[in-house]
Amino acid sequence: MRSEVKPPWFQVRFDNLDREAECNEGETLFHSARRAGVRIVGACGGRGVCGTCIVRISSGEVDVERPESAGGATAPRAKEWVRACLSRPSSDCVVEIAPRSIAAVVRAEVGGQEVTVAPDPVVRGHDVVLAPAIMGQRQGGGADADRVIDALRDEGAARIDLYALRELPGLLRGTGWRLQALVRGDEVIGVQPSGTRPLGLAIDLGTTNCAGFLVDLETGARLASLGIENPQAAYGADLVSRVNHAIRSAAGARELQTAAIAAIVGLARDLCEAVSAMPAQIIEVAVCGNTAMHHLLLGLPVSQLGRAPFVPAMCGAIDIKARDLGLATAPGAYVHLLPNVGGYVGGDHVAVLLATENRWAKTTTIVMDIGTNTEISLIHRGAITSVSAPSGPALEGGHIGAGMRAAEGAIERVRVVDGSLQIEVIGGDAEAVGLCGSGVLDALAAMVEAGLVNRRGRIGSGHAAIRAHGDHREVTLAPGVAFTQNDVRAVQLAKAAIRAGIDCLLQEAGLEESAIERVVIAGAFGAYIGLESAVRIGLLPALPLARIEQVGNAAGIGVRMALASAALRDRARALALRSRYLELGSLAGFRRIFMGRIGFE
Amino acid sequence: MRSEVKPPWFQVRFDNLDREAECNEGETLFHSARRAGVRIVGACGGRGVCGTCIVRISSGEVDVERPESAGGATAPRAKEWVRACLSRPSSDCVVEIAPRSIAAVVRAEVGGQEVTVAPDPVVRGHDVVLAPAIMGQRQGGGADADRVIDALRDEGAARIDLYALRELPGLLRGTGWRLQALVRGDEVIGVQPSGTRPLGLAIDLGTTNCAGFLVDLETGARLASLGIENPQAAYGADLVSRVNHAIRSAAGARELQTAAIAAIVGLARDLCEAVSAMPAQIIEVAVCGNTAMHHLLLGLPVSQLGRAPFVPAMCGAIDIKARDLGLATAPGAYVHLLPNVGGYVGGDHVAVLLATENRWAKTTTIVMDIGTNTEISLIHRGAITSVSAPSGPALEGGHIGAGMRAAEGAIERVRVVDGSLQIEVIGGDAEAVGLCGSGVLDALAAMVEAGLVNRRGRIGSGHAAIRAHGDHREVTLAPGVAFTQNDVRAVQLAKAAIRAGIDCLLQEAGLEESAIERVVIAGAFGAYIGLESAVRIGLLPALPLARIEQVGNAAGIGVRMALASAALRDRARALALRSRYLELGSLAGFRRIFMGRIGFE
Repeated sequence: MRSEVKPPWFQVRFDNLDREAECNEGETLFHSARRAGVRIVGACGGRGVCGTCIVRISSGEVDVERPESAGGATAPRAKEWVRACLSRPSSDCVVEIAPRSIAAVVRAEVGGQEVTVAPDPVVRGHDVVLAPAIMGQRQGGGADADRVIDALRDEGAARIDLYALRELPGLLRGTGWRLQALVRGDEVIGVQPSGTRPLGLAIDLGTTNCAGFLVDLETGARLASLGIENPQAAYGADLVSRVNHAIRSAAGARELQTAAIAAIVGLARDLCEAVSAMPAQIIEVAVCGNTAMHHLLLGLPVSQLGRAPFVPAMCGAIDIKARDLGLATAPGAYVHLLPNVGGYVGGDHVAVLLATENRWAKTTTIVMDIGTNTEISLIHRGAITSVSAPSGPALEGGHIGAGMRAAEGAIERVRVVDGSLQIEVIGGDAEAVGLCGSGVLDALAAMVEAGLVNRRGRIGSGHAAIRAHGDHREVTLAPGVAFTQNDVRAVQLAKAAIRAGIDCLLQEAGLEESAIERVVIAGAFGAYIGLESAVRIGLLPALPLARIEQVGNAAGIGVRMALASAALRDRARALALRSRYLELGSLAGFRRIFMGRIGFE
Repeated sequence: MRSEVKPPWFQVRFDNLDREAECNEGETLFHSARRAGVRIVGACGGRGVCGTCIVRISSGEVDVERPESAGGATAPRAKEWVRACLSRPSSDCVVEIAPRSIAAVVRAEVGGQEVTVAPDPVVRGHDVVLAPAIMGQRQGGGADADRVIDALRDEGAARIDLYALRELPGLLRGTGWRLQALVRGDEVIGVQPSGTRPLGLAIDLGTTNCAGFLVDLETGARLASLGIENPQAAYGADLVSRVNHAIRSAAGARELQTAAIAAIVGLARDLCEAVSAMPAQIIEVAVCGNTAMHHLLLGLPVSQLGRAPFVPAMCGAIDIKARDLGLATAPGAYVHLLPNVGGYVGGDHVAVLLATENRWAKTTTIVMDIGTNTEISLIHRGAITSVSAPSGPALEGGHIGAGMRAAEGAIERVRVVDGSLQIEVIGGDAEAVGLCGSGVLDALAAMVEAGLVNRRGRIGSGHAAIRAHGDHREVTLAPGVAFTQNDVRAVQLAKAAIRAGIDCLLQEAGLEESAIERVVIAGAFGAYIGLESAVRIGLLPALPLARIEQVGNAAGIGVRMALASAALRDRARALALRSRYLELGSLAGFRRIFMGRIGFE
């Protein structure tokens, strides 16, 4: 213990965010930042394509990867702005992130398109005023906590959290015997100076992205929101590889838990900073995520979840002390995790159901949240049946050669005009550098429409946009941006998985496609796809487009609803209990249905 | 962080107990062991008198203090047995404690004089057998925890502790889907293999000594018990100095909390080892202590407790997760702290009231627990009024020049025979090396009786046993064992405080001494004092001795009762609420009454 041991990482300080990260030997600044939940922009995911992760080095030694023609890796010049995804530290260092490369915290716009939740918080602040303690007071009348609990008897208080108790005597005497007690059920979970704004934190813990929302629990108003990449991505882009990482070793499981916690801690910190509050003002947290994210965050074992019969440790909603996860909220605060439905349909889908219930009640509806796993529910005659289709990251631009996030330079639309492909790029005149999710779908639909891709998904030949390198064929969408045969295959697998999921649900219910009165598409990705393209490649049934609705990040809205309202939390529980979970892999005929949906009509 | 920093302590390993301690520079092995809760015997408290703390050094550098004539401090010879209280490490070292110097764990004697508590545990083990998980199970029927909770619905279970949840999937699959679930209220706090013995730990956290009892919660039987010195003694022998240490700095408060926790962790570990169990089998802990010990253990602020008006942070009983204190019990286990009555009458006195209730119900009774603080209750017509008398450690042999614990060589009885003092030493023929508590009282009573001390407490002259060094006088009880004028003063203050406490209670109730039908004396010290001596020096009222009963460590019995039985826990709550706390310092006339009790009749 006393000998000098050099840790196998470098300490990187991101000075203008006042944050630190540990950068492994050979790792880039971008990836270490992402792993630590530091909110650095990186539209292409750190592949050196988009140029959005700009930093400069204030101190320390860093190698910046340069084109071979420029001499390979060299140190940056003084004050040179470089790409974080091409910069590898070889010592501890201090880094400045370019202002435009800091992911923005969005503060709520007054009058913006906000869902209004009637506040019905599980934690309520109550003002308590006591007479100063005097000598010789009796039990109950004498001790600080007993007097506070007595004063809150009508509010249901019967006990006090240990950490709140530790703060109580000093607070009472520092505030002239007046304070705000936070009561949750029968427990005083915190004490604060009167008038402290009671904050809540809602977290949509996605496989790829984590969204955080800071909410005023008294009014239900959203104060600020922020999305960051899930730092777990460092251990695998998709759920299966993360689950396997956690199964392989306890240390791996801890890494994934630590990363998920770091994401929440970082979101809490940055959101609070945006409204000049302290994380200690957060008195309740609600989290939704798919079942694997839920388990990894809580440090639950996942080996039984990752292997047939894919059994969760727990589906029911659970409330735990935030300190049991190491969150720096109010010391007695709880984290509420929304209930899961089954192995691969989690609390995030329950949040979607909660947020969209008013759109599908009493109709036959498909509700789907398109993502790395696409959760799909069929609601018919009040019954909810849910599946998870393993769609993979392709639809979001992941595992696509030229894939990137929706940012400047991303192709977001592709149309066929006079037999040739016409692109639209985010940023208007910007040079195309890649494809974002909606562009991926559009591109494939256009390629099918223009006959560049046949029914079985093979890229043909004889078109100006097609290039062939031996067996390998690709379609050029813009200079340097190609859609390859592998990309086509990836999208085919994704759309076939989703469509087969819908087919299986209909088959189970004995319904025809035409019986679907409504399709509700949730998710940030689903919000931007071209519905015509989605129908054309067969991802969605060929229904009148008027029946299909894109509702955006409904999971984020749902988790905020569960944060702000005890009644809606109960509603989420009821929705989860009403949902029947179907494991697609256990359905006879799934494989056949899936194979039947690979091609194009 | 990377430079070599030598910590300001040495690591000491006590090999045959498999324990470690940090020994500060200049500190003795004895004191570092005591501070870490290592159960080393030391009858004289580490003053180099009794020779009961024998160790030898297996490796490392240690200086052993020797008489000047023997050349002062030197290293021990190979395999030499030395006194731990005279040994100071100058490097990390490994130490073997002599078998006779390891404080014994007492296992319950079958048929011994044990209080039998009808078991009514707050945590109950229930066997749960599940069908193996299969593919495609529904929510509630599917996830592990939901199925376990469903199976325990009739036992009141509705939720599961996070840490228990983490263990559940592996346990279910490792035990063939059969386990023992531990239900406490509506919470599954733990899961274990079926048939695991459910253990409870009761702790009497005294200022000077801590007693631990391991209990089988199913039968209520005591399995083992152990007493160790409170490691907080390193930060002050009496409560006031410890409270001040905690007030002075947050670090000081943490030291005291850490020491109290170390005591409990050490007791749990040693007790479990004695019955070949693991601390993780402990599924419930009950702790009683005076209000200051309660606060220091929980890490509650004590500045408001240590200064007028001496207000506790909390009096009511509190249940906290054992992990919030860092106890290595079952991960979801709770610690129940018995309620306090007021600033200086704590849960240990409530435990005494609980354990002795059958002895005083419906009579006018004084119940007292003699210790560093002596808690005294007057029960009259069903009303309980309690005070704490600041008696100090003198009566237990602390702050007495020749004071020591009741161990071989301690004078335990002193009588006047033909005008001279006759002593009895523990161990019969052993050489007298000091005075234990009962000896202190006896010695003073005998000195008064023999006229060596006058009514005001002055040691006279003209007796063979009296020696005078200038103004300083002392009475020789045995070669090298003297009772000094300072010792007389210390006992006078102690007995006057206790007697004045009784006087004040009687005065408040409008009663004469003769109205006392019963005196119940609790506490290990109280069990051994000579009642005649106690009456003679005026510590107790001059009542017929038949009215006075010595009941031993009633606090230890009471905390075991509260551990084993939910109903008795409620009873303890009710007793605390019924008790009226009087702050002696707030009573007009206390000082006058106290001064009136300083002398001897």
